[in-house]
Amino acid sequence: MPKSWRTFFIGRPLATADAPHQTIGKVVGLAVFASDALSSTAYATQEILMILALAGAGAFRFTFPIALAIVALMTIVAISYEQTIHAYPGGGGAYIVARDNLGEVPAQAAGAALLTDYTLTVAVSISSGVAQIVSAVPSLFPYRVWIAAGLVLFVMVINLRGVKESGVTFAIPTYFFVITMLLTVSVGLFKALTGQLGTVVNPPEMHVGTAVAALSPFLILHAFSSGTSALTGIEAISNGITAFKEPRSRNAGITLVWMAALLGVLFLGVSYIAQHVGAVPSETETVISQLTRTIYGSQGLFYFLVMAGTSVILVMAANTAFADFPRLGALQAGDGFLPRQLTYRGSRLVFSRGIMSLAAIAITLIVLFQASVTRLIPLYAIGVFLSFTLSQSGMAHRWWKVGHLKKDETVVEPGSTLRYEKNWMVKMFINGFGAVCTFVVMIVFAVTKFHEGAWVVTIIIPFLVIVFLTIHRHYKGLARQLSLEHGTSPNGIKRNRVVLLVGGVHQGTLAALRYARNLTDDITAVHIATDPVEAEKIRAKWEVWGEGARLIILESPFRLFMEPLLDYLAKLEKLRKPGQLITIVVPQFVPKKPIFRLLHSRTAEMLRKVLLNQEDMVIIEVPYQVE
Amino acid sequence: MPKSWRTFFIGRPLATADAPHQTIGKVVGLAVFASDALSSTAYATQEILMILALAGAGAFRFTFPIALAIVALMTIVAISYEQTIHAYPGGGGAYIVARDNLGEVPAQAAGAALLTDYTLTVAVSISSGVAQIVSAVPSLFPYRVWIAAGLVLFVMVINLRGVKESGVTFAIPTYFFVITMLLTVSVGLFKALTGQLGTVVNPPEMHVGTAVAALSPFLILHAFSSGTSALTGIEAISNGITAFKEPRSRNAGITLVWMAALLGVLFLGVSYIAQHVGAVPSETETVISQLTRTIYGSQGLFYFLVMAGTSVILVMAANTAFADFPRLGALQAGDGFLPRQLTYRGSRLVFSRGIMSLAAIAITLIVLFQASVTRLIPLYAIGVFLSFTLSQSGMAHRWWKVGHLKKDETVVEPGSTLRYEKNWMVKMFINGFGAVCTFVVMIVFAVTKFHEGAWVVTIIIPFLVIVFLTIHRHYKGLARQLSLEHGTSPNGIKRNRVVLLVGGVHQGTLAALRYARNLTDDITAVHIATDPVEAEKIRAKWEVWGEGARLIILESPFRLFMEPLLDYLAKLEKLRKPGQLITIVVPQFVPKKPIFRLLHSRTAEMLRKVLLNQEDMVIIEVPYQVE
Repeated sequence: MPKSWRTFFIGRPLATADAPHQTIGKVVGLAVFASDALSSTAYATQEILMILALAGAGAFRFTFPIALAIVALMTIVAISYEQTIHAYPGGGGAYIVARDNLGEVPAQAAGAALLTDYTLTVAVSISSGVAQIVSAVPSLFPYRVWIAAGLVLFVMVINLRGVKESGVTFAIPTYFFVITMLLTVSVGLFKALTGQLGTVVNPPEMHVGTAVAALSPFLILHAFSSGTSALTGIEAISNGITAFKEPRSRNAGITLVWMAALLGVLFLGVSYIAQHVGAVPSETETVISQLTRTIYGSQGLFYFLVMAGTSVILVMAANTAFADFPRLGALQAGDGFLPRQLTYRGSRLVFSRGIMSLAAIAITLIVLFQASVTRLIPLYAIGVFLSFTLSQSGMAHRWWKVGHLKKDETVVEPGSTLRYEKNWMVKMFINGFGAVCTFVVMIVFAVTKFHEGAWVVTIIIPFLVIVFLTIHRHYKGLARQLSLEHGTSPNGIKRNRVVLLVGGVHQGTLAALRYARNLTDDITAVHIATDPVEAEKIRAKWEVWGEGARLIILESPFRLFMEPLLDYLAKLEKLRKPGQLITIVVPQFVPKKPIFRLLHSRTAEMLRKVLLNQEDMVIIEVPYQVE
Repeated sequence: MPKSWRTFFIGRPLATADAPHQTIGKVVGLAVFASDALSSTAYATQEILMILALAGAGAFRFTFPIALAIVALMTIVAISYEQTIHAYPGGGGAYIVARDNLGEVPAQAAGAALLTDYTLTVAVSISSGVAQIVSAVPSLFPYRVWIAAGLVLFVMVINLRGVKESGVTFAIPTYFFVITMLLTVSVGLFKALTGQLGTVVNPPEMHVGTAVAALSPFLILHAFSSGTSALTGIEAISNGITAFKEPRSRNAGITLVWMAALLGVLFLGVSYIAQHVGAVPSETETVISQLTRTIYGSQGLFYFLVMAGTSVILVMAANTAFADFPRLGALQAGDGFLPRQLTYRGSRLVFSRGIMSLAAIAITLIVLFQASVTRLIPLYAIGVFLSFTLSQSGMAHRWWKVGHLKKDETVVEPGSTLRYEKNWMVKMFINGFGAVCTFVVMIVFAVTKFHEGAWVVTIIIPFLVIVFLTIHRHYKGLARQLSLEHGTSPNGIKRNRVVLLVGGVHQGTLAALRYARNLTDDITAVHIATDPVEAEKIRAKWEVWGEGARLIILESPFRLFMEPLLDYLAKLEKLRKPGQLITIVVPQFVPKKPIFRLLHSRTAEMLRKVLLNQEDMVIIEVPYQVE
């Protein structure tokens, strides 16, 4: 029963082993890597308005100027990343660049920042997607948290199935979104320029009704911070360069430029029109919804197409995070900063756990923040900008190293190859400028949004870095202990003493006895007697079936099981000489139907938990299959 | 770290082994067994009022007559149980009586009914206890669900610690409750008779504001059903006869009579005064609270003493259920109707699971029903009355058997000994009458409360019975398969082929190799190569350290782990001849600190899950302890 249930939802276990990636061109590449970045146009403008609203509707006139500043920043970041793509043709995420150029702690900080961010991408994107749906169908508003949680679970199941993502899966919704949005923005701009664009009819209730703050530079910076969520996802291509057709770096770089251009156009267009039509920030109707219905004059077919496209691309952005999270995790695990198990891609058990944990955390965030994008945003962008800063600093340092190489020298680092380049100073300046800008934005973000939740992230990221470093120390210590440098092979086994647990004398016990005899002749059968009458029966039967092995009956008048056994083992332990092993053989019934396995105690498993720290003590479970 | 946390909350593991019970006298016995029964006086009257309120406050005049009818029923049940106590000196719970006299299905029905009931006892008692606290301190009302859940967890931890309950632990709060309540009822009755007792000042808002139902016989029966919750717990002494000093049955019987008398007096007293002072049913203030503050004229010291006593005895009633649940579970497990693991009392792991499950279900109920006693009651009493009915029917059948014995014949049943008795017909009539009465009440209860939730119980109990019977069938089938009747001992092992998993060549691997060599010379070391460079290193090292055992490297270009291994094992499996074993030896690091164990995959455990159904395949984990 559980098997078919699993099969239905998750697919046949182990069947979807990764095939080697087919490489993709620029058109498909844009679709595959742009959903996260482009989808942020669905909420970035709204988040600017949310903050400006604190100073009253009059402050909305700053929306477009702020958007311009953000696009300027975006340009710098995009140029920086274009350089990274060429330097790291094997994939140059912030983690790799920081690791190769800045050292252990910055690399782990980048890793922590990105893992935190992928989680928040799921929560924010899904929440925004649900906000679009709820805008179109207001009666669903009370169920938004449920819908959001349901969508996370949906994306989780998709990822547990491990459905192979084809380019088409991404291309159709991404281009659908791009085309409908471009069309909408164009129609909007045309109407605006020809004076046909009115203002929002029946605007929703504004998030903040009246001015509660003064229109200060701080507030403008605050609004700017919120808007920088538009930049999230712009780094995606630099992680996935290997997916492109040759010449990889060139194709990836061109795609990045295209993506940034589209992102800039859409974001500026939405921001301009939002300001023009007087869209107001609200929890019940998104800015995209207000803008679209104003442009098309009604909630007709076009309105629903735009809303559907927006919702779908947001869900896809969440899906991307589900793919990035385990990939980065595997990278860090390979370097020994996360549990090694994460490096095995196909070990579905471990992989599934990562996906399910990500879904669980995202759902928790969604429930805690009631699927409100505005309340989630303060946690979001710090990680992104920290990873930007580390990545660009790393690149700047890389150019510095490149500039100090001899003309014909080549240095191979794990992620890239260093050769002298003439214009290293220009490139260093570009990445350095990018680093400074993103660092400043990060600080602005942390300060302006500290009280709204950014402080949580300033705790989580260092905490994660400490955890990663602790794990690394453990693995390094382990390697030292396990090393064969000392040159001594362990001593041979002088005696292997087998303790065979006997609950009753039956086929299962005899199978275990047979196995034990294969190990050694030094077998002691042990029965824990909770019932004297039963114990006598076992003694009699053992005389017939026990093949001469001695049987010890441990009295347990209070119906205890583990305690008398552990006492007995402790006694053996005391008598033991060096080189002597103790092996405990436990017969275990294995019913065919897994549900019935619950009816049999896993004695071996329980013993293992207690005796794991005992040296030279091995616990063997001899399974005996029954109907 | 986790160790000390456990120790703090739950006590040193395995340290609190049961000492044999000291026997107790009547005074302490009353305290130990009466908390469940007596505590129901805290809510029974209120539940009658709740239903009568549906027909308006005018219907409250029926409160006392209904209480009288319930006390009459209680008398019948008490007399019936008094007979059971003498017939089953070893303890005569409904399960045992039904098993010995009615057969398998009725016995399991009694078991299911009681287990359901113990769970509800926890939820109802704790909810009522919290209602008392909230009545005294109304500002806590919004937190009632949290407080109730916290109290369940508190009782859970107490039970996980396995603190030995001394008579005094029970005697002090029980007698404190009995004395304060008797005093309160006496003062109330005195004031009522001398005309000094007024009505409730500032009564709380009534649960149902206006009459919504006609005052019909159905409504009266409905109110009667609710009031029968007063009878819950009356069977407790019949379960625990062995705890009494000799002459056991006599002492237990006298204690039962005392308990029933106290219960009757308190319940009638509370009901009479409640009707007299015009107490109204409410979710915010309990009837006990209204009554006490009216009797004492204010919320002074006495008021708080009564409320505290009532709260404490209700929590103790929940504690009793925590003791009864595993005891009955062990009884049913011993008969093969529940997982056998439950019979081990000291196996703390299993025992803890039972306690924690009980707490989890109770908390779920409390959250679902918002700690409202009124909403929980419809689920409660069906189980109780089903067990009463089965127990009394069983007793009636037992007397019939006794009456048909020869004068000097003796029949020994598992729970009691049958000897001819002269007045068997009278006794059969008493128990039979009890059975009929409780059966009728059960039907009345099910019908009148069907829509309020009783239907849930009419599904759960049969479902549990089916589960119990399925488990029993499994164990019986297993015994047949394991039986040695067929007389053939399994064949000897012709060949034991060992597969040693090699992740790397280090001390842990050598320890496992040493162990494997002790098993056989037929060793194949297998390495899953996710990285060709690494694999080459391992091959070279193995030549030095592998003691001549052959090494097979399984290529895994896609970083899979389990899949290539399972493929390889499937190949071995095909080649295998009868009598040949396959043993997989897995080296396993065991870091001293348990937290670091999470950093190492339990490969053996994962293999076991997949390979459990493979015959003659044993998986051995050879632990290697590291810092």
